[in-house]
Amino acid sequence: MMATVSYPNRPAQPRPGPAMAKSPVTSIDVARLAEVSQSAVSRTFTPGASVAPDTRARVLEAARKLGYRPNAIARTLSTRRSRMIALVMSNLQNQFYPLVVERLSQRLQKDGYHVLLFITETEDADELLVELMRYQVDGIVMASTQLSSRLAQEIADARIPVVMFNRSTRAGRVSTVSSDNHGGGRAVAQFLAAGGHQRVAYLAGAEDTSTNQDRERGLRDGLAEHGLRVVARAVGHYDFERARQATRELFGPLVAASERPDALFVASDHMAFAAMDVLRLELGLRVPDDVSVVGYDDVPQAAWGSYALTTVAQDATAMIEATVGTLLQQLEDDAVSRGQVLVPATLVVRQSARRPVEGAA
Amino acid sequence: MMATVSYPNRPAQPRPGPAMAKSPVTSIDVARLAEVSQSAVSRTFTPGASVAPDTRARVLEAARKLGYRPNAIARTLSTRRSRMIALVMSNLQNQFYPLVVERLSQRLQKDGYHVLLFITETEDADELLVELMRYQVDGIVMASTQLSSRLAQEIADARIPVVMFNRSTRAGRVSTVSSDNHGGGRAVAQFLAAGGHQRVAYLAGAEDTSTNQDRERGLRDGLAEHGLRVVARAVGHYDFERARQATRELFGPLVAASERPDALFVASDHMAFAAMDVLRLELGLRVPDDVSVVGYDDVPQAAWGSYALTTVAQDATAMIEATVGTLLQQLEDDAVSRGQVLVPATLVVRQSARRPVEGAA
Repeated sequence: MMATVSYPNRPAQPRPGPAMAKSPVTSIDVARLAEVSQSAVSRTFTPGASVAPDTRARVLEAARKLGYRPNAIARTLSTRRSRMIALVMSNLQNQFYPLVVERLSQRLQKDGYHVLLFITETEDADELLVELMRYQVDGIVMASTQLSSRLAQEIADARIPVVMFNRSTRAGRVSTVSSDNHGGGRAVAQFLAAGGHQRVAYLAGAEDTSTNQDRERGLRDGLAEHGLRVVARAVGHYDFERARQATRELFGPLVAASERPDALFVASDHMAFAAMDVLRLELGLRVPDDVSVVGYDDVPQAAWGSYALTTVAQDATAMIEATVGTLLQQLEDDAVSRGQVLVPATLVVRQSARRPVEGAA
Repeated sequence: MMATVSYPNRPAQPRPGPAMAKSPVTSIDVARLAEVSQSAVSRTFTPGASVAPDTRARVLEAARKLGYRPNAIARTLSTRRSRMIALVMSNLQNQFYPLVVERLSQRLQKDGYHVLLFITETEDADELLVELMRYQVDGIVMASTQLSSRLAQEIADARIPVVMFNRSTRAGRVSTVSSDNHGGGRAVAQFLAAGGHQRVAYLAGAEDTSTNQDRERGLRDGLAEHGLRVVARAVGHYDFERARQATRELFGPLVAASERPDALFVASDHMAFAAMDVLRLELGLRVPDDVSVVGYDDVPQAAWGSYALTTVAQDATAMIEATVGTLLQQLEDDAVSRGQVLVPATLVVRQSARRPVEGAA
């Protein structure tokens, strides 16, 4: 796009320092008309700076009258921060992510930052890194379970504060924030075992993600404690359609009734909804009478009456607090040690899975 | 936040022009090491500029070795664009909005822009306008049905390209893009009339929004063409919980069976899911046998088997194309006339409403 905006009051060829003074309207003109200090004008247009509402109103009124526009040079002189945090995601399909986008934005705005979105599935670290440097974001939240942690590593190596959200990694040089996925999976196993389930199946997310690996390990470890194991397994890749297909593989007509699992742990609520629809509407199975279903995330839809999904709640608010706190720490001290934050995950019991008390009957 | 990032290679007190040359590492150093032109280095770190992948890789490699960081001053000299489009929303509750965030971001990225998020419910035009000017966004998409159009007007008056998304307004000085909400409401009326429904109720969104007003007007006009009218009405304010309550008002035990509506048009799918849960699980009514339900938006969840919601599809992709096209036009020519784009809305028939053929039986 070679198009250019025509701002009548901007110099055709902006040049640094003195040259800017030749610009028709300067912050001095605005200060004079608004009868405030020049620093008040500068503060008004500096991200993160504070200014009294009435002062702001007068500055804005004068700026409108004069057609004044703040410029990046003035801004760069008054602050070395862009006041932008990049949020890198691959998509918003899983209903957990809209929640993250909304709450992370609101939380950062409290501290005078805004979220700059990067929706990408690229594995080209150079391409993404250059884009991020171009916008001079102050920090980065990588909130995609799909993007490789090597990407985050490259960014961290470029000395840009970065937090991997909803991820864990063995590489200790990047900060991560995730819920206790292993503990969550283990809690599901204990709940299903206590409910008297004998044949537990697992519907996996993307195989190469830490969320899927940790949740499955937790399930297997928890079942082993009760002398149980995962009797069947299929992969849904965190995708709705593929989860439907995976459910057919696990429960379809080709599966003998005696072989059929009596419980299904699904690696995300998003896939669990797909599984429940296939079980009930396509295969005519009752949930939980014939099959108990447990999900992961506790997205708003899990509470909807038609699903009433028993699931593991990720505490999005706590995860976001930890993420913002970690970022701000790195912003204050580039040398701060990188750590892994695990936010406790709690089982939310609704109607989609047989409960212990019934199991005891 | 008074914290500052410590970038070893940045001057403690950056000053414009000549002073920058004193910065330990300059684009000249990078160009020399990478054996490319200085303009190649500048292009590499300029949003929207193009550079060959191998050149980019060499520049990035050299920049990494030297610990070089591009700076806003250099960027401002090389372009007068921030390459950022602000997306202003009040929340992402309604599942239509995550779709908009994802697709608008992807679409803008194709043209070398990124989305800067402003999640706000403020009615303080000054506050929002100052925030937007602070970040010097090239354009603004207002995608909240709640924010007043006066706000958009104030922004347009500040000569910042702005498009109101999913809104229509009488004030002709702001560009708007919306689906044909009146036409959509009218199509619902015709479908319900052809289905033999006699007692149509309306579950309204926020009363003061153009989406709600246009959809309801369309419904009433369409029903009138068949000698029908809206027999009952309640307000859900586009909120899930309030939609549940509104459904109880319209169909609860206090309503005599003879008085009960036989069809319900809900102003958004998000509220329609709440209505269906209350109708079926709380009030024991069958959908569509006892009550036909029709929604608006066609969000992904509308296709989920448990709801199979008949609804009016908003063509998000077409709406976003129109929005981006309108913005880029205004970016090229500030004087371009502001218009209202209406994207056709089409009824998607699923199982939640009785169909014409059955009605004829």
